[in-house]
Amino acid sequence: MANKNIYMYIISDSAGETASKLAQASIAQYEQLDIECHLMKRTFIYEKSDLMIALEEAKLVNAIVIQTLISEELVKISNEFCQENNLFYFDALSPVVDEISQRTGVEPTRVPGALHFLNENYFERINAMEFAVKYDDGKDPRGFLEADILLLGVSRTSKTPLSLFLANKNLKVANLPLIPEAHIPSQIWEVDPKKIVGLTNDPKILNAIREERMRSYGLSPNTAYSDISKIKEELKFADDLYKKIGCLIINVAQRSIEETASIILSELGLEDHSYFS
Amino acid sequence: MANKNIYMYIISDSAGETASKLAQASIAQYEQLDIECHLMKRTFIYEKSDLMIALEEAKLVNAIVIQTLISEELVKISNEFCQENNLFYFDALSPVVDEISQRTGVEPTRVPGALHFLNENYFERINAMEFAVKYDDGKDPRGFLEADILLLGVSRTSKTPLSLFLANKNLKVANLPLIPEAHIPSQIWEVDPKKIVGLTNDPKILNAIREERMRSYGLSPNTAYSDISKIKEELKFADDLYKKIGCLIINVAQRSIEETASIILSELGLEDHSYFS
Repeated sequence: MANKNIYMYIISDSAGETASKLAQASIAQYEQLDIECHLMKRTFIYEKSDLMIALEEAKLVNAIVIQTLISEELVKISNEFCQENNLFYFDALSPVVDEISQRTGVEPTRVPGALHFLNENYFERINAMEFAVKYDDGKDPRGFLEADILLLGVSRTSKTPLSLFLANKNLKVANLPLIPEAHIPSQIWEVDPKKIVGLTNDPKILNAIREERMRSYGLSPNTAYSDISKIKEELKFADDLYKKIGCLIINVAQRSIEETASIILSELGLEDHSYFS
Repeated sequence: MANKNIYMYIISDSAGETASKLAQASIAQYEQLDIECHLMKRTFIYEKSDLMIALEEAKLVNAIVIQTLISEELVKISNEFCQENNLFYFDALSPVVDEISQRTGVEPTRVPGALHFLNENYFERINAMEFAVKYDDGKDPRGFLEADILLLGVSRTSKTPLSLFLANKNLKVANLPLIPEAHIPSQIWEVDPKKIVGLTNDPKILNAIREERMRSYGLSPNTAYSDISKIKEELKFADDLYKKIGCLIINVAQRSIEETASIILSELGLEDHSYFS
Protein backbone atom coordinates (compact mmCIF):
# COMPACT_ATOMS: atom_id res chain seq x y z
CA MET A 1 0.00 0.00 0.00
CA ALA A 2 1.30 3.39 -0.97
CA ASN A 3 2.20 5.96 1.65
CA LYS A 4 -0.15 8.82 2.12
CA ASN A 5 1.65 11.98 1.12
CA ILE A 6 1.14 15.32 2.82
CA TYR A 7 2.81 18.50 1.61
CA MET A 8 3.22 21.47 3.92
CA TYR A 9 4.40 24.89 2.83
CA ILE A 10 5.88 27.19 5.43
CA ILE A 11 5.61 30.74 4.13
CA SER A 12 7.34 33.33 6.26
CA ASP A 13 8.82 36.80 6.03
CA SER A 14 11.43 35.63 8.51
CA ALA A 15 13.30 32.33 9.06
CA GLY A 16 10.03 30.42 9.50
CA GLU A 17 11.02 29.10 12.93
CA THR A 18 7.59 29.46 14.54
CA ALA A 19 5.76 27.86 11.64
CA SER A 20 8.34 25.04 11.40
CA LYS A 21 7.91 24.17 15.07
CA LEU A 22 4.17 24.10 14.56
CA ALA A 23 4.48 21.87 11.48
CA GLN A 24 6.86 19.48 13.22
CA ALA A 25 4.65 19.24 16.30
CA SER A 26 1.74 18.32 14.03
CA ILE A 27 3.72 15.83 11.96
CA ALA A 28 4.99 14.20 15.17
CA GLN A 29 1.40 13.21 15.92
CA TYR A 30 1.56 10.81 12.98
CA GLU A 31 4.82 9.15 13.93
CA GLN A 32 5.10 5.57 12.71
CA LEU A 33 1.78 5.79 10.93
CA ASP A 34 1.44 5.33 7.21
CA ILE A 35 2.10 8.92 6.26
CA GLU A 36 4.92 10.73 4.53
CA CYS A 37 5.16 14.47 5.19
CA HIS A 38 7.08 16.84 2.95
CA LEU A 39 7.93 20.12 4.59
CA MET A 40 8.85 22.96 2.26
CA LYS A 41 10.16 26.25 3.58
CA ARG A 42 9.82 29.47 1.65
CA THR A 43 11.40 32.01 3.96
CA PHE A 44 12.30 35.71 3.95
CA ILE A 45 9.39 36.44 1.65
CA TYR A 46 8.99 40.22 1.43
CA GLU A 47 7.76 40.72 -2.11
CA LYS A 48 4.41 39.93 -3.63
CA SER A 49 6.13 38.22 -6.57
CA ASP A 50 8.03 35.79 -4.30
CA LEU A 51 4.86 35.11 -2.34
CA MET A 52 2.97 34.27 -5.53
CA ILE A 53 5.68 31.80 -6.63
CA ALA A 54 5.46 30.03 -3.27
CA LEU A 55 1.65 29.95 -3.34
CA GLU A 56 1.54 28.59 -6.90
CA GLU A 57 3.99 25.85 -5.90
CA ALA A 58 1.83 25.03 -2.87
CA LYS A 59 -1.24 24.86 -5.08
CA LEU A 60 0.40 22.32 -7.41
CA VAL A 61 0.70 19.80 -4.57
CA ASN A 62 -2.50 20.82 -2.71
CA ALA A 63 -0.32 21.74 0.27
CA ILE A 64 -1.27 22.68 3.80
CA VAL A 65 -0.05 26.28 4.03
CA ILE A 66 1.28 27.52 7.37
CA GLN A 67 1.97 31.17 7.19
CA THR A 68 3.73 33.71 9.41
CA LEU A 69 3.63 36.98 7.52
CA ILE A 70 3.25 40.37 9.15
CA SER A 71 2.62 42.65 6.16
CA GLU A 72 -1.14 43.21 5.98
CA GLU A 73 -0.94 43.24 2.19
CA LEU A 74 0.88 39.88 1.99
CA VAL A 75 -1.41 38.26 4.59
CA LYS A 76 -4.43 39.36 2.57
CA ILE A 77 -2.98 38.08 -0.72
CA SER A 78 -2.02 34.77 0.82
CA ASN A 79 -5.31 34.16 2.62
CA GLU A 80 -7.38 35.12 -0.41
CA PHE A 81 -5.30 32.95 -2.74
CA CYS A 82 -5.79 29.95 -0.46
CA GLN A 83 -9.53 30.57 -0.16
CA GLU A 84 -9.97 30.95 -3.93
CA ASN A 85 -7.97 27.80 -4.61
CA ASN A 86 -9.41 25.70 -1.80
CA LEU A 87 -6.03 25.36 -0.13
CA PHE A 88 -6.06 24.70 3.61
CA TYR A 89 -4.14 27.49 5.34
CA PHE A 90 -3.26 28.36 8.89
CA ASP A 91 -2.42 31.98 9.62
CA ALA A 92 -0.32 31.49 12.75
CA LEU A 93 0.56 35.08 13.54
CA SER A 94 -2.38 37.39 12.78
CA PRO A 95 -4.90 36.27 15.46
CA VAL A 96 -2.67 37.02 18.46
CA VAL A 97 -1.07 40.12 16.89
CA ASP A 98 -4.52 41.53 16.10
CA GLU A 99 -5.87 40.71 19.56
CA ILE A 100 -3.06 42.67 21.26
CA SER A 101 -3.80 45.59 18.97
CA GLN A 102 -7.54 45.51 19.73
CA ARG A 103 -6.95 45.37 23.47
CA THR A 104 -4.44 48.17 23.60
CA GLY A 105 -5.36 50.39 20.68
CA VAL A 106 -1.68 50.23 19.67
CA GLU A 107 -0.75 49.36 16.08
CA PRO A 108 1.93 46.66 15.59
CA THR A 109 5.15 47.78 13.93
CA ARG A 110 4.72 45.17 11.18
CA VAL A 111 8.49 44.85 10.85
CA PRO A 112 9.15 41.34 9.50
CA GLY A 113 11.13 38.96 11.63
CA ALA A 114 11.12 41.38 14.54
CA LEU A 115 11.42 38.32 16.76
CA HIS A 116 15.16 38.22 16.19
CA PHE A 117 15.66 41.72 17.43
CA LEU A 118 13.31 41.68 20.39
CA ASN A 119 14.89 44.32 22.64
CA GLU A 120 18.40 43.31 23.65
CA ASN A 121 17.26 39.72 23.51
CA TYR A 122 19.05 38.71 20.35
CA PHE A 123 22.57 39.78 21.30
CA GLU A 124 22.13 38.47 24.82
CA ARG A 125 21.24 35.10 23.32
CA ILE A 126 24.34 35.07 21.11
CA ASN A 127 26.46 35.88 24.14
CA ALA A 128 24.78 33.16 26.17
CA MET A 129 25.50 30.59 23.44
CA GLU A 130 29.16 31.57 23.29
CA PHE A 131 29.31 31.46 27.08
CA ALA A 132 27.91 27.91 27.12
CA VAL A 133 30.53 26.69 24.65
CA LYS A 134 33.34 28.51 26.43
CA TYR A 135 32.43 27.11 29.84
CA ASP A 136 31.31 23.65 28.75
CA ASP A 137 32.80 20.59 30.36
CA GLY A 138 34.42 22.46 33.26
CA LYS A 139 36.91 24.01 30.85
CA ASP A 140 37.32 27.14 32.93
CA PRO A 141 35.91 27.21 36.48
CA ARG A 142 36.20 30.99 36.55
CA GLY A 143 33.02 30.95 34.46
CA PHE A 144 31.09 29.43 37.39
CA LEU A 145 30.92 32.77 39.17
CA GLU A 146 29.60 34.58 36.11
CA ALA A 147 27.04 31.90 35.25
CA ASP A 148 23.29 32.16 35.85
CA ILE A 149 23.19 28.37 36.22
CA LEU A 150 25.90 25.83 36.98
CA LEU A 151 25.11 22.25 35.96
CA LEU A 152 26.88 19.38 37.65
CA GLY A 153 26.65 15.77 36.53
CA VAL A 154 28.47 12.55 35.80
CA SER A 155 29.14 11.58 32.20
CA ARG A 156 26.02 11.20 30.01
CA THR A 157 23.54 13.23 32.02
CA SER A 158 22.91 15.69 29.11
CA LYS A 159 24.97 18.56 30.51
CA THR A 160 26.05 19.94 27.13
CA PRO A 161 22.73 19.88 25.25
CA LEU A 162 20.96 21.17 28.35
CA SER A 163 23.45 24.07 28.63
CA LEU A 164 22.84 24.98 25.00
CA PHE A 165 19.08 24.69 25.31
CA LEU A 166 19.10 27.05 28.30
CA ALA A 167 21.51 29.38 26.46
CA ASN A 168 18.78 29.71 23.84
CA LYS A 169 16.68 31.21 26.63
CA ASN A 170 19.41 33.81 27.22
CA LEU A 171 20.82 32.14 30.31
CA LYS A 172 24.55 31.90 30.90
CA VAL A 173 25.21 28.28 31.77
CA ALA A 174 28.46 26.59 32.78
CA ASN A 175 28.77 22.87 33.39
CA LEU A 176 31.15 20.59 35.23
CA PRO A 177 31.51 16.84 34.71
CA LEU A 178 31.86 14.95 37.98
CA ILE A 179 34.51 12.25 38.12
CA PRO A 180 35.20 10.75 41.56
CA GLU A 181 38.97 10.67 40.99
CA ALA A 182 39.17 14.24 39.71
CA HIS A 183 39.63 17.43 41.65
CA ILE A 184 36.49 19.52 42.27
CA PRO A 185 37.30 23.17 41.51
CA SER A 186 37.10 25.32 44.64
CA GLN A 187 34.91 27.83 42.79
CA ILE A 188 31.80 25.67 43.22
CA TRP A 189 31.76 26.59 46.91
CA GLU A 190 31.60 30.28 46.01
CA VAL A 191 28.52 29.89 43.78
CA ASP A 192 25.06 30.50 45.27
CA PRO A 193 23.65 26.95 45.75
CA LYS A 194 20.34 28.21 44.31
CA LYS A 195 22.10 28.59 40.95
CA ILE A 196 23.47 25.03 41.00
CA VAL A 197 21.66 22.03 39.55
CA GLY A 198 22.88 18.48 40.19
CA LEU A 199 22.00 16.06 37.40
CA THR A 200 21.69 12.36 38.06
CA ASN A 201 20.43 9.33 36.20
CA ASP A 202 19.41 5.72 36.79
CA PRO A 203 22.40 3.34 36.91
CA LYS A 204 20.82 0.91 34.44
CA ILE A 205 20.12 3.63 31.91
CA LEU A 206 23.63 5.05 32.23
CA ASN A 207 25.00 1.56 31.80
CA ALA A 208 23.03 1.05 28.57
CA ILE A 209 23.94 4.49 27.19
CA ARG A 210 27.62 4.02 27.94
CA GLU A 211 27.77 0.49 26.51
CA GLU A 212 26.20 1.88 23.35
CA ARG A 213 28.74 4.68 23.30
CA MET A 214 31.62 2.22 23.57
CA ARG A 215 30.14 0.18 20.73
CA SER A 216 29.87 3.31 18.57
CA TYR A 217 33.60 3.83 19.16
CA GLY A 218 34.19 0.27 17.97
CA LEU A 219 35.24 -0.80 21.48
CA SER A 220 34.04 -3.59 23.73
CA PRO A 221 30.91 -2.47 25.63
CA ASN A 222 32.28 -3.89 28.88
CA THR A 223 34.72 -1.30 30.17
CA ALA A 224 35.17 0.43 33.53
CA TYR A 225 33.24 3.33 31.96
CA SER A 226 30.13 1.18 31.56
CA ASP A 227 30.59 -1.05 34.63
CA ILE A 228 27.43 -0.92 36.76
CA SER A 229 29.13 -0.92 40.17
CA LYS A 230 31.52 1.79 38.97
CA ILE A 231 28.51 3.80 37.76
CA LYS A 232 26.77 3.41 41.12
CA GLU A 233 29.92 4.66 42.84
CA GLU A 234 30.00 7.70 40.56
CA LEU A 235 26.33 8.46 41.19
CA LYS A 236 26.84 8.10 44.94
CA PHE A 237 29.80 10.48 44.77
CA ALA A 238 27.67 12.98 42.83
CA ASP A 239 24.70 12.62 45.16
CA ASP A 240 26.85 13.18 48.25
CA LEU A 241 28.29 16.31 46.68
CA TYR A 242 24.80 17.65 45.75
CA LYS A 243 23.61 17.15 49.34
CA LYS A 244 26.69 18.87 50.70
CA ILE A 245 26.05 21.82 48.37
CA GLY A 246 22.31 21.78 49.05
CA CYS A 247 21.37 22.23 45.40
CA LEU A 248 18.41 21.15 43.28
CA ILE A 249 18.78 17.54 42.10
CA ILE A 250 17.13 16.28 38.90
CA ASN A 251 17.06 12.73 37.64
CA VAL A 252 17.20 13.03 33.84
CA ALA A 253 16.17 9.41 33.22
CA GLN A 254 13.08 9.33 30.97
CA ARG A 255 13.17 13.10 30.60
CA SER A 256 13.79 15.05 27.42
CA ILE A 257 16.13 18.05 27.48
CA GLU A 258 13.07 20.29 27.16
CA GLU A 259 11.44 18.74 30.21
CA THR A 260 14.56 18.96 32.37
CA ALA A 261 15.05 22.58 31.28
CA SER A 262 11.46 23.34 32.15
CA ILE A 263 11.93 21.94 35.69
CA ILE A 264 15.08 24.04 36.16
CA LEU A 265 13.43 27.23 34.92
CA SER A 266 10.43 26.73 37.09
CA GLU A 267 12.46 25.86 40.23
CA LEU A 268 14.68 28.90 39.71
CA GLY A 269 11.64 31.10 39.10
CA LEU A 270 12.66 31.84 35.53
CA GLU A 271 9.65 30.41 33.68
CA ASP A 272 7.58 33.58 33.46
CA HIS A 273 8.89 36.65 31.71
CA SER A 274 7.80 40.20 31.24
CA TYR A 275 8.67 41.93 27.99
CA PHE A 276 8.78 45.68 28.18
CA SER A 277 8.19 46.97 24.74
CA MET B 1 0.76 57.43 31.31
CA ALA B 2 0.62 53.86 32.54
CA ASN B 3 1.85 51.02 30.43
CA LYS B 4 -0.74 48.86 28.82
CA ASN B 5 -0.47 45.41 30.29
CA ILE B 6 -1.04 42.24 28.35
CA TYR B 7 -0.99 38.80 29.96
CA MET B 8 -0.41 35.69 27.88
CA TYR B 9 -0.79 32.18 29.16
CA ILE B 10 1.03 29.40 27.34
CA ILE B 11 -0.75 26.15 28.17
CA SER B 12 1.00 23.06 26.84
CA ASP B 13 1.25 19.32 27.49
CA SER B 14 4.90 19.62 26.48
CA ALA B 15 7.60 22.26 27.01
CA GLY B 16 5.51 24.94 25.31
CA GLU B 17 8.21 25.73 22.75
CA THR B 18 5.88 26.19 19.79
CA ALA B 19 3.46 28.41 21.69
CA SER B 20 6.31 30.45 23.20
CA LYS B 21 7.79 31.16 19.78
CA LEU B 22 4.38 32.25 18.61
CA ALA B 23 3.88 34.50 21.65
CA GLN B 24 7.33 36.07 21.28
CA ALA B 25 6.85 36.69 17.56
CA SER B 26 3.59 38.48 18.37
CA ILE B 27 5.05 40.49 21.25
CA ALA B 28 7.98 41.51 19.04
CA GLN B 29 5.50 43.38 16.84
CA TYR B 30 4.98 45.82 19.71
CA GLU B 31 8.63 46.50 20.40
CA GLN B 32 9.28 49.94 21.82
CA LEU B 33 5.60 50.72 21.95
CA ASP B 34 3.80 51.50 25.17
CA ILE B 35 2.98 47.91 26.08
CA GLU B 36 4.16 45.53 28.76
CA CYS B 37 3.66 41.84 28.03
CA HIS B 38 3.69 39.19 30.73
CA LEU B 39 4.29 35.70 29.43
CA MET B 40 3.29 32.88 31.75
CA LYS B 41 4.14 29.28 30.93
CA ARG B 42 2.13 26.40 32.30
CA THR B 43 3.83 23.39 30.77
CA PHE B 44 3.62 19.58 30.95
CA ILE B 45 -0.10 19.81 31.69
CA TYR B 46 -1.52 16.27 31.46
CA GLU B 47 -4.26 16.36 34.09
CA LYS B 48 -7.60 18.11 34.03
CA SER B 49 -6.96 19.49 37.53
CA ASP B 50 -3.69 21.17 36.46
CA LEU B 51 -5.37 22.54 33.37
CA MET B 52 -8.18 24.04 35.45
CA ILE B 53 -5.70 25.78 37.78
CA ALA B 54 -3.91 27.32 34.78
CA LEU B 55 -7.19 28.41 33.18
CA GLU B 56 -8.51 29.98 36.39
CA GLU B 57 -5.24 31.90 36.73
CA ALA B 58 -5.53 33.06 33.13
CA LYS B 59 -9.11 34.19 33.78
CA LEU B 60 -8.06 36.34 36.75
CA VAL B 61 -5.86 38.50 34.49
CA ASN B 62 -8.05 38.25 31.36
CA ALA B 63 -5.12 36.60 29.58
CA ILE B 64 -4.65 35.73 25.96
CA VAL B 65 -4.45 31.93 26.04
CA ILE B 66 -2.17 30.20 23.55
CA GLN B 67 -2.62 26.50 23.79
CA THR B 68 -0.81 23.45 22.42
CA LEU B 69 -2.61 20.44 23.85
CA ILE B 70 -3.09 17.18 22.02
CA SER B 71 -5.56 15.33 24.28
CA GLU B 72 -9.00 15.82 22.75
CA GLU B 73 -10.51 15.98 26.22
CA LEU B 74 -8.14 18.72 27.42
CA VAL B 75 -8.54 20.73 24.19
CA LYS B 76 -12.31 20.60 24.61
CA ILE B 77 -12.18 21.65 28.27
CA SER B 78 -9.79 24.49 27.52
CA ASN B 79 -11.66 25.83 24.50
CA GLU B 80 -15.03 25.64 26.26
CA PHE B 81 -13.70 27.33 29.39
CA CYS B 82 -12.31 30.18 27.30
CA GLN B 83 -15.55 30.57 25.36
CA GLU B 84 -17.70 30.57 28.52
CA ASN B 85 -15.45 33.09 30.21
CA ASN B 86 -14.89 35.32 27.21
CA LEU B 87 -11.17 34.65 27.20
CA PHE B 88 -9.39 35.06 23.89
CA TYR B 89 -7.71 31.78 23.00
CA PHE B 90 -5.63 30.49 20.15
CA ASP B 91 -5.55 26.73 19.64
CA ALA B 92 -2.23 26.44 17.80
CA LEU B 93 -2.09 22.71 17.24
CA SER B 94 -5.56 21.32 16.47
CA PRO B 95 -6.24 22.89 13.06
CA VAL B 96 -3.20 21.40 11.29
CA VAL B 97 -3.34 18.08 13.20
CA ASP B 98 -7.03 17.70 12.31
CA GLU B 99 -6.44 18.63 8.66
CA ILE B 100 -3.81 15.89 8.27
CA SER B 101 -6.24 13.41 9.79
CA GLN B 102 -9.07 14.45 7.49
CA ARG B 103 -6.88 14.18 4.40
CA THR B 104 -5.41 10.81 5.22
CA GLY B 105 -8.07 9.12 7.30
CA VAL B 106 -5.34 8.35 9.82
CA GLU B 107 -5.89 9.17 13.49
CA PRO B 108 -3.09 11.08 15.28
CA THR B 109 -1.33 9.25 18.10
CA ARG B 110 -2.23 12.04 20.55
CA VAL B 111 0.97 11.38 22.50
CA PRO B 112 1.87 14.67 24.22
CA GLY B 113 5.13 16.30 23.27
CA ALA B 114 5.73 13.77 20.54
CA LEU B 115 7.77 16.50 18.87
CA HIS B 116 10.77 15.62 21.00
CA PHE B 117 10.80 12.06 19.86
CA LEU B 118 10.10 12.56 16.20
CA ASN B 119 11.69 9.47 14.68
CA GLU B 120 15.43 9.42 15.36
CA ASN B 121 15.33 13.18 15.22
CA TYR B 122 15.76 13.87 18.89
CA PHE B 123 18.88 11.83 19.52
CA GLU B 124 20.40 12.99 16.27
CA ARG B 125 19.92 16.55 17.43
CA ILE B 126 21.60 15.89 20.78
CA ASN B 127 24.53 14.32 18.92
CA ALA B 128 24.71 17.26 16.55
CA MET B 129 24.83 19.71 19.48
CA GLU B 130 27.63 17.77 21.14
CA PHE B 131 29.45 17.59 17.81
CA ALA B 132 29.24 21.38 17.40
CA VAL B 133 30.74 21.98 20.84
CA LYS B 134 33.43 19.36 20.34
CA TYR B 135 34.53 20.73 16.99
CA ASP B 136 34.03 24.42 17.71
CA ASP B 137 36.86 26.86 17.11
CA GLY B 138 39.00 24.43 15.10
CA LYS B 139 39.66 22.41 18.23
CA ASP B 140 40.07 19.16 16.34
CA PRO B 141 40.40 19.27 12.53
CA ARG B 142 39.62 15.55 12.33
CA GLY B 143 36.00 16.60 12.83
CA PHE B 144 36.05 18.40 9.47
CA LEU B 145 35.78 15.13 7.58
CA GLU B 146 32.80 13.96 9.63
CA ALA B 147 30.97 17.28 9.44
CA ASP B 148 27.95 18.04 7.26
CA ILE B 149 29.05 21.65 7.14
CA LEU B 150 32.41 23.31 7.80
CA LEU B 151 32.24 27.02 8.61
CA LEU B 152 35.32 29.19 8.06
CA GLY B 153 35.62 32.78 9.20
CA VAL B 154 37.73 35.43 10.87
CA SER B 155 36.99 36.36 14.49
CA ARG B 156 33.46 37.73 15.10
CA THR B 157 31.67 36.36 12.08
CA SER B 158 29.19 34.36 14.25
CA LYS B 159 30.79 30.95 13.68
CA THR B 160 29.84 29.53 17.09
CA PRO B 161 26.18 30.62 17.34
CA LEU B 162 25.68 29.68 13.70
CA SER B 163 27.14 26.20 14.34
CA LEU B 164 24.77 25.71 17.28
CA PHE B 165 21.77 26.99 15.37
CA LEU B 166 22.46 24.53 12.54
CA ALA B 167 23.06 21.76 15.09
CA ASN B 168 19.50 22.37 16.22
CA LYS B 169 18.51 21.33 12.71
CA ASN B 170 20.40 18.05 13.18
CA LEU B 171 23.43 19.06 11.16
CA LYS B 172 26.94 18.23 12.27
CA VAL B 173 28.87 21.47 12.01
CA ALA B 174 32.55 22.14 12.64
CA ASN B 175 34.10 25.59 12.47
CA LEU B 176 37.58 26.99 12.01
CA PRO B 177 38.67 30.51 12.88
CA LEU B 178 40.93 32.04 10.24
CA ILE B 179 43.98 33.89 11.46
CA PRO B 180 46.51 34.92 8.78
CA GLU B 181 49.49 33.98 10.95
CA ALA B 182 48.11 30.59 11.93
CA HIS B 183 48.50 27.29 10.18
CA ILE B 184 45.53 26.10 8.09
CA PRO B 185 44.87 22.43 8.87
CA SER B 186 45.49 20.25 5.84
CA GLN B 187 42.11 18.56 6.38
CA ILE B 188 40.23 21.46 4.80
CA TRP B 189 41.57 20.35 1.38
CA GLU B 190 40.02 16.92 1.89
CA VAL B 191 36.52 18.28 2.56
CA ASP B 192 34.04 18.56 -0.33
CA PRO B 193 34.03 22.32 -1.14
CA LYS B 194 30.22 22.12 -1.37
CA LYS B 195 30.15 21.48 2.38
CA ILE B 196 32.32 24.51 3.18
CA VAL B 197 30.95 27.97 3.90
CA GLY B 198 33.24 31.00 4.10
CA LEU B 199 31.92 33.74 6.37
CA THR B 200 32.95 37.31 5.91
CA ASN B 201 31.90 40.69 7.25
CA ASP B 202 32.28 44.41 6.53
CA PRO B 203 35.55 45.85 7.89
CA LYS B 204 33.78 48.77 9.60
CA ILE B 205 31.32 46.51 11.39
CA LEU B 206 34.09 44.15 12.53
CA ASN B 207 36.05 47.14 13.75
CA ALA B 208 33.09 48.39 15.84
CA ILE B 209 32.31 44.90 17.23
CA ARG B 210 35.93 44.29 18.18
CA GLU B 211 36.42 47.69 19.79
CA GLU B 212 33.30 47.00 21.84
CA ARG B 213 34.67 43.60 22.79
CA MET B 214 37.94 45.13 23.98
CA ARG B 215 35.98 47.67 26.05
CA SER B 216 33.96 44.87 27.63
CA TYR B 217 37.27 43.28 28.68
CA GLY B 218 38.24 46.60 30.28
CA LEU B 219 40.98 47.14 27.66
CA SER B 220 41.70 50.02 25.32
CA PRO B 221 39.52 49.67 22.17
CA ASN B 222 42.51 50.48 19.94
CA THR B 223 44.44 47.24 19.66
CA ALA B 224 45.82 45.28 16.69
CA TYR B 225 42.67 43.13 17.06
CA SER B 226 40.43 46.08 16.21
CA ASP B 227 42.79 47.92 13.83
CA ILE B 228 40.96 48.54 10.55
CA SER B 229 43.92 47.89 8.20
CA LYS B 230 44.68 44.68 10.12
CA ILE B 231 41.01 43.66 9.76
CA LYS B 232 41.11 44.33 6.02
CA GLU B 233 44.22 42.16 5.75
CA GLU B 234 42.46 39.34 7.62
CA LEU B 235 39.37 39.60 5.40
CA LYS B 236 41.56 39.59 2.28
CA PHE B 237 43.35 36.49 3.54
CA ALA B 238 40.00 34.78 4.19
CA ASP B 239 38.57 35.83 0.84
CA ASP B 240 41.62 34.50 -1.04
CA LEU B 241 41.30 31.20 0.78
CA TYR B 242 37.54 30.94 0.00
CA LYS B 243 38.24 31.52 -3.69
CA LYS B 244 40.99 28.92 -3.69
CA ILE B 245 38.60 26.41 -2.09
CA GLY B 246 35.72 27.45 -4.32
CA CYS B 247 33.19 27.49 -1.48
CA LEU B 248 30.03 29.47 -0.80
CA ILE B 249 30.83 32.92 0.66
CA ILE B 250 28.35 34.76 2.89
CA ASN B 251 28.72 38.27 4.25
CA VAL B 252 27.08 38.16 7.68
CA ALA B 253 26.93 41.96 8.06
CA GLN B 254 23.31 43.04 8.73
CA ARG B 255 22.20 39.41 8.83
CA SER B 256 20.79 37.56 11.80
CA ILE B 257 22.00 34.05 12.55
CA GLU B 258 18.63 32.75 11.37
CA GLU B 259 18.99 34.50 8.04
CA THR B 260 22.56 33.31 7.43
CA ALA B 261 21.51 29.76 8.38
CA SER B 262 18.61 29.94 5.98
CA ILE B 263 20.95 30.96 3.12
CA ILE B 264 23.27 28.05 3.94
CA LEU B 265 20.45 25.50 4.12
CA SER B 266 18.96 26.69 0.88
CA GLU B 267 22.33 26.77 -0.98
CA LEU B 268 23.17 23.28 0.25
CA GLY B 269 19.70 22.04 -0.68
CA LEU B 270 18.82 21.25 2.93
CA GLU B 271 15.82 23.56 3.37
CA ASP B 272 13.12 21.06 2.51
CA HIS B 273 12.64 17.87 4.47
CA SER B 274 10.59 14.77 4.22
CA TYR B 275 9.43 13.07 7.39
CA PHE B 276 8.62 9.42 7.05
CA SER B 277 6.23 8.55 9.76
